[in-house]
Amino acid sequence: MSTNHTEQAADHDDDFDRWYVDVVRNAELADDAPVRGCKVIRPYGFRLWELMTARLDERIKATGAENAYFPLFIPRHLLEREAEHIAGFAPEVAWVTRGGGHELDEPWAVRPSSESIICPSFARWVQSYRDLPIVINQWGNAVRWEERPRAFLRTLEFLWQEGHTCHASADEADQRARQMLEVYRAFLEEDLAIPVIPGLKTESEKFAGALRTHTVEAMMGGKFWALQAGTSHDLGDHFGRVFGIQFLDRDGERKFACNTSFGLSTRTVGAVIMVHGDPGGGLKLPPRVAPIQVVVVPIWRSPAELAAVAAAVARIAERLAPVARLHVDWRDDRTPGFKFNEWELKGVPLRLEVGPRDVAADQAILVRRDTREKTPVPVATLASTIETLLTDIQTAMFAAAKHTLDTHTAPVASYADLAARAAANAGFSLAHWCGDPACETRVKTETKATIRCIPRNLPKEPGQCIVCGKQSDQRVIFARAY
Amino acid sequence: MSTNHTEQAADHDDDFDRWYVDVVRNAELADDAPVRGCKVIRPYGFRLWELMTARLDERIKATGAENAYFPLFIPRHLLEREAEHIAGFAPEVAWVTRGGGHELDEPWAVRPSSESIICPSFARWVQSYRDLPIVINQWGNAVRWEERPRAFLRTLEFLWQEGHTCHASADEADQRARQMLEVYRAFLEEDLAIPVIPGLKTESEKFAGALRTHTVEAMMGGKFWALQAGTSHDLGDHFGRVFGIQFLDRDGERKFACNTSFGLSTRTVGAVIMVHGDPGGGLKLPPRVAPIQVVVVPIWRSPAELAAVAAAVARIAERLAPVARLHVDWRDDRTPGFKFNEWELKGVPLRLEVGPRDVAADQAILVRRDTREKTPVPVATLASTIETLLTDIQTAMFAAAKHTLDTHTAPVASYADLAARAAANAGFSLAHWCGDPACETRVKTETKATIRCIPRNLPKEPGQCIVCGKQSDQRVIFARAY
Repeated sequence: MSTNHTEQAADHDDDFDRWYVDVVRNAELADDAPVRGCKVIRPYGFRLWELMTARLDERIKATGAENAYFPLFIPRHLLEREAEHIAGFAPEVAWVTRGGGHELDEPWAVRPSSESIICPSFARWVQSYRDLPIVINQWGNAVRWEERPRAFLRTLEFLWQEGHTCHASADEADQRARQMLEVYRAFLEEDLAIPVIPGLKTESEKFAGALRTHTVEAMMGGKFWALQAGTSHDLGDHFGRVFGIQFLDRDGERKFACNTSFGLSTRTVGAVIMVHGDPGGGLKLPPRVAPIQVVVVPIWRSPAELAAVAAAVARIAERLAPVARLHVDWRDDRTPGFKFNEWELKGVPLRLEVGPRDVAADQAILVRRDTREKTPVPVATLASTIETLLTDIQTAMFAAAKHTLDTHTAPVASYADLAARAAANAGFSLAHWCGDPACETRVKTETKATIRCIPRNLPKEPGQCIVCGKQSDQRVIFARAY
Repeated sequence: MSTNHTEQAADHDDDFDRWYVDVVRNAELADDAPVRGCKVIRPYGFRLWELMTARLDERIKATGAENAYFPLFIPRHLLEREAEHIAGFAPEVAWVTRGGGHELDEPWAVRPSSESIICPSFARWVQSYRDLPIVINQWGNAVRWEERPRAFLRTLEFLWQEGHTCHASADEADQRARQMLEVYRAFLEEDLAIPVIPGLKTESEKFAGALRTHTVEAMMGGKFWALQAGTSHDLGDHFGRVFGIQFLDRDGERKFACNTSFGLSTRTVGAVIMVHGDPGGGLKLPPRVAPIQVVVVPIWRSPAELAAVAAAVARIAERLAPVARLHVDWRDDRTPGFKFNEWELKGVPLRLEVGPRDVAADQAILVRRDTREKTPVPVATLASTIETLLTDIQTAMFAAAKHTLDTHTAPVASYADLAARAAANAGFSLAHWCGDPACETRVKTETKATIRCIPRNLPKEPGQCIVCGKQSDQRVIFARAY
């Protein structure tokens, strides 16, 4: 996560922004909190995050990382040690100045990111090349000042994982930074059904203190703006030098270690909402991380009908428990129609309606959230049908999001085109850029579009910078961003 | 967790304290941090906590609780709203006074506990009896000032779960507080093999703002001091009234809701170390939460031996993977003897030695950490033997800890006896107490022993207060505590 994710906060709300706020509130994902800049993550929203983190944690551990925990507080002198790092973070820091009944000699930062509290431990633990690599991950909270919060997308406190690694060579650190970006790509595309464009941040957009920052950029629905969904930083030996992380190498020489760090936060919950949601309708959750994959709505009028339906639902629930996260909505103070709406709003991928006529026919009515398709399914084949459908829906949701990304990404040949696309919320623009930060700044100032990344998978191609006309060998992605 | 857990911090270290510090460092559970009062939880220690939290999370969810997340920061006016609550916590609070480049109008507390940031949300969410109960749990960090940290036991920042619930009646809150104490008892006894004494805290030892505090008290090894391992608070309507959590009941009347809260923290990792460790030796971890349940130490001299041993170990690992968390120690710069010591120190329940002679005999040498018993086991029966042994070790560790608790708990008939037992580190003393805080304070001042709890399972019995001689109908537990 870079330090400049709040850059676009000054725009006025439009319909899509209002839809986002409404869906977050109405689906009970998050709520306002009585402390400025912060939000409450409600059980339904937190369960989504919990299922996301379980998947991501598994992927991170599969690369050999181990979880650990470092202090929340960073004494000022440590945060200040890496000059670019503190320059990037200083304006966003919350400071503890009093504790245990007295003023502190030195203020403590509430971690905006943990490099400067973890590197001193690396310096203690690393003596020889045999102690390397160290590959650590931490799940926790972090704080970056925010006056205009938006649930999940921009909050003063956010939850995230931050990985921190230490290596014997620059090459190994480079490989690790790329490897973790690939973990994010796979997680976003396979688990969240969010297609992303992997690439490199420009110098002005990279992480404060990094040699280079890799990013995965996603396209949101509604306004087709970008959201930086995860970043992986090759820190070179910048932190190794200032924190004195030195080791005796195989060749008998003392060397500085190289580091990486990488993070993915609760912002990604915002991405899930904005990529898949129905503007005008509600949430659509990808089955792999949906807190409820199948909601069963029993329908009855008389006590006799209730008894028959209850018995059928019990049988169905037993069959489905091994294949899906199931919830049966037995509320007796809500009509079936109200429940249908509510669970649609909450983005549950599949709904099963079970009424007296279904019981008689030994079937249930299955409704897909994404297509709204409605099919009667015999109870006998329900489990296998649902198992298949959950996979199909996951695939279809990725395909739909990929279609949005592809159809709203286009090359531009002139600065006027770029400005027009940015003003019209037309999506991502692929434009030649000479590499000069002055050209980048001009675009940002005039159009509010920023360079999201230098895409990794786009072939080199000669051209002229869209701003100054100088030579360029690569198109980059310009877009407005959350 | 009560606010007075640091009360006994002023004693000098003895052998057991030094053993604790050494084992935490040498087993790489935790390390010093470059910020006062805090520690770093290293991967091996964090994995232990992770396995503990997975078990406890499952138990808490089984009672119907859902996880959620509330802000880290609490504006001062909210923390001050419940008078006893702030009186208890004020001396321990860390305050954020600057953020985003300016002084705050009102300082923010870094949560010492979350009642006062969660209750305003309860007040928003609760309108009718139909909105109740709310049963929420939160995993996160909290901060209470600490000048003399000890890894896990006392750190300025700690990790924990804190449950917060909201109910329509005092009776339901009372039931919930007791139910959660039972969850802690089962978790501690069944998952951590730590026997506990459930009971009630006295007025002077209860949670700041609570109606009553239930606690589970455990006996540590070494000095046989107590450790408060988990607490569950019935908050009555104290918080409901000051935070205005009101609802329309079935009977048409507006009423204040009742609350509970309950917490268990990383202190419990300290309990695992101190209950099961070998003073003089190393850690002993209960199999259910041991990061590594079986460590395989291959033994070879020549490349030919290595090849044969590697093939055998691969077969063994494949068989054992489904029944145990396994680690194979392939390091080639350490002798087998060094490895045996290291994994013993790290408390791994079972060690498997596989050398050329074992390969020839199609067996492995199995060594129990708790009894040091060494047995050759045929490869064919290894998986079932290990599965059984892991259960046996868990049971044996509980029995050993229960034996320690039972043999170091005794009734006392006089104040002199009580004082002598406290001075001699003799364990828990069951003594009559009249209920007067003055008598409690005198014992604490003169002997450093505190009332750990009024035990739930001890039958009432008439007697005289050990301090003042007045009538008493119940013995309580006095002990020194961490």
